[in-house]
Amino acid sequence: MLGLGAMGRALAAAFLRAGHPTTVWNRSPGRADELVAQGATEAATAAEAVRASPLVVLIVLDHKAVTAVTEAIADDLPGRTLVNLTADTPDRARETAAWAADRGIDYLDGSVMVPVDVIGTPHALLFHAGPRELFDRYAGTLGALGGRIEYVGAEYGLAAAYDLALLDYFYASMSGLVHAFALAEAEGADPLAIGPFFDSITAIMPPIAAEMASEVASGEYPGGGANLGMMAATVEHLVEVSEHRRLDTGVLHAIKSVADRTLAAGRAKEGWTATVDVVRPADRS
Amino acid sequence: MLGLGAMGRALAAAFLRAGHPTTVWNRSPGRADELVAQGATEAATAAEAVRASPLVVLIVLDHKAVTAVTEAIADDLPGRTLVNLTADTPDRARETAAWAADRGIDYLDGSVMVPVDVIGTPHALLFHAGPRELFDRYAGTLGALGGRIEYVGAEYGLAAAYDLALLDYFYASMSGLVHAFALAEAEGADPLAIGPFFDSITAIMPPIAAEMASEVASGEYPGGGANLGMMAATVEHLVEVSEHRRLDTGVLHAIKSVADRTLAAGRAKEGWTATVDVVRPADRS
Repeated sequence: MLGLGAMGRALAAAFLRAGHPTTVWNRSPGRADELVAQGATEAATAAEAVRASPLVVLIVLDHKAVTAVTEAIADDLPGRTLVNLTADTPDRARETAAWAADRGIDYLDGSVMVPVDVIGTPHALLFHAGPRELFDRYAGTLGALGGRIEYVGAEYGLAAAYDLALLDYFYASMSGLVHAFALAEAEGADPLAIGPFFDSITAIMPPIAAEMASEVASGEYPGGGANLGMMAATVEHLVEVSEHRRLDTGVLHAIKSVADRTLAAGRAKEGWTATVDVVRPADRS
Repeated sequence: MLGLGAMGRALAAAFLRAGHPTTVWNRSPGRADELVAQGATEAATAAEAVRASPLVVLIVLDHKAVTAVTEAIADDLPGRTLVNLTADTPDRARETAAWAADRGIDYLDGSVMVPVDVIGTPHALLFHAGPRELFDRYAGTLGALGGRIEYVGAEYGLAAAYDLALLDYFYASMSGLVHAFALAEAEGADPLAIGPFFDSITAIMPPIAAEMASEVASGEYPGGGANLGMMAATVEHLVEVSEHRRLDTGVLHAIKSVADRTLAAGRAKEGWTATVDVVRPADRS
C-alpha cells in the first residue's frame, strides 16, 4: 500500500482485517503507526514496499504525486501488478497506463467512490479499468476493500470516466439542494421542516436514471408524462421566483439555457433527455 | 372537482374509489365520461359543481385559469372550503388566498408532488398550506388522494414554496444526470453500463439533505470528511474534462462560480453547504 492519507490508511486497514499480509509506505513518515499495530509492515522506501508483494496499490494526492512515486519504483514493478486508485482524469489515467505499458508493468486504474468510513463495508464501491485477466486475478484480494469491486472495461480511462460522471451528477445535485434550501427559506419555509421531503425527489431518480441510460444509448427521447416544453416552463418559474427573491440564479439560468436551446431545435414534445444533444459536442457525428 | 386535465381526472378517480360522492366539471366538455362511468356526477357549470359539495378541489393549467374559475364561483364559495392544487408560485398562492379572505371563503393552497399514476397510492405526496383547522377538517377526505397528505403551515405561500424547492433540486439533478451521461459517453463509456451506478450517488443524498437542513437552519457549515476547497477542486476537474471534450459547461461553470465566490470569502475549510451564503440574497440580515 503506497500512500497513507486518510483513504490509503482505510484501504490498508481493510486489507489487514481480511488477513492479507500488507506492507505500507508513505512519503512523509509517521502515518503508519496505527496500521503497524494492526499487523502491517512499514517499509522505509516505496521500492521496498513494492518488493514485498505481487499486488501494489497506490493512492496519493494527485497525478504529480503518482508520477513521483511510480518513477521511483519503475524498476521494481515488472512482474507485479500496480493498481492506481488515485483520483484523476481519464486522460491522465491513460497516460499512467501508457507509461506502465512502456515498461512492461501490469496495470489497473481504479477509482474509489465512497468516503473513508464506508471502505471495507458492503456499500464500498470501487471501479477498475484495464485488462480483465488482471482484474480477475486480484478481484478476491481487492474484495477486502468492500462489497462492490467493479470492473468497468479494458479501456484505461473508464474507471476515471465513471468516477467523474458520478461526481458530475453529485455536484449538480448538491448545488440544486443548496439552492432549494435557500429558495424555501426565502419563501418563509423552515429548512428543518422541508428537509425530509427532498427524499421524495431522490426516490424517483433511480428509475429516471435507468430510463435516461436507455434513451441516451438509443438516441431517442420520448419522455414520459412530462415533456420538455412543460418542464422548461417549470424551470422558468424557478428562475422568476429566485430572481424575485434575489437569489443567485447562475445555475438555474444555465439549466434554462440548455433547455431553451433544445426547445429552439423544435423538440418541446420530447423528454428532458433530449437536452443531451445540446450538452454533447456540436460536431459529434 | 374543478378541472379535468390528466391530474384532475386522477384526483377525481381517487375520490370516487374511496367512496366519496364526487361532482366534476371542466371548462371544455368531454373530459368527464370515464369519471361518470365510475360514479361521478357531471356538472354543467363550475357554480353547479361547487354547490354540490362542502369541499371544492380546483386544479387547472395556471393562475390565469384559476382567476377565471374562481371569479365565476365566488358567490357560491362562502361556507365551503376551496382547495386549490394548481401549481404556481408562492406569491400567486398568496394572492389567491387574499382574494378568498376578502370574500370570506375558507381556503387551502396545495401542490401535487407526484405524477398522475402515483395518485391514490401510498407514495402520493401533496402539500397543503392555510389554516390548520381547515386542513384537519378535510385531511380524511383528502387522504383518498394518497399516502402522504402533508400540512406544511399556515402561511399560504408554503405549499408552493415546498413545491418549487423540490423542483429546484429535481431539475438540478436532472441536468447533472444528463451531463454525466454525456461526459461518460464522451470518454467512451456505455450509457447502459454506467446507468445503474448513479444509484450510488442517489443513495447518499438523503443523509446529506438531513445534514444540510441542520446546517442551513443553524448557519454553521462544518462539513464532513470533505471540505469546500477539496470539493471545488473536483468541480474544477469536471470543468476541465468537459471543456476538453467540448461538452456544454454552462451549468458546471455556474456551480464553480458559486463555489469560487464562497472560497473567496475564506471558507475553504467549511462544508459545501457554506455556498448557501452566496446563493442567498446579498442583503440578508
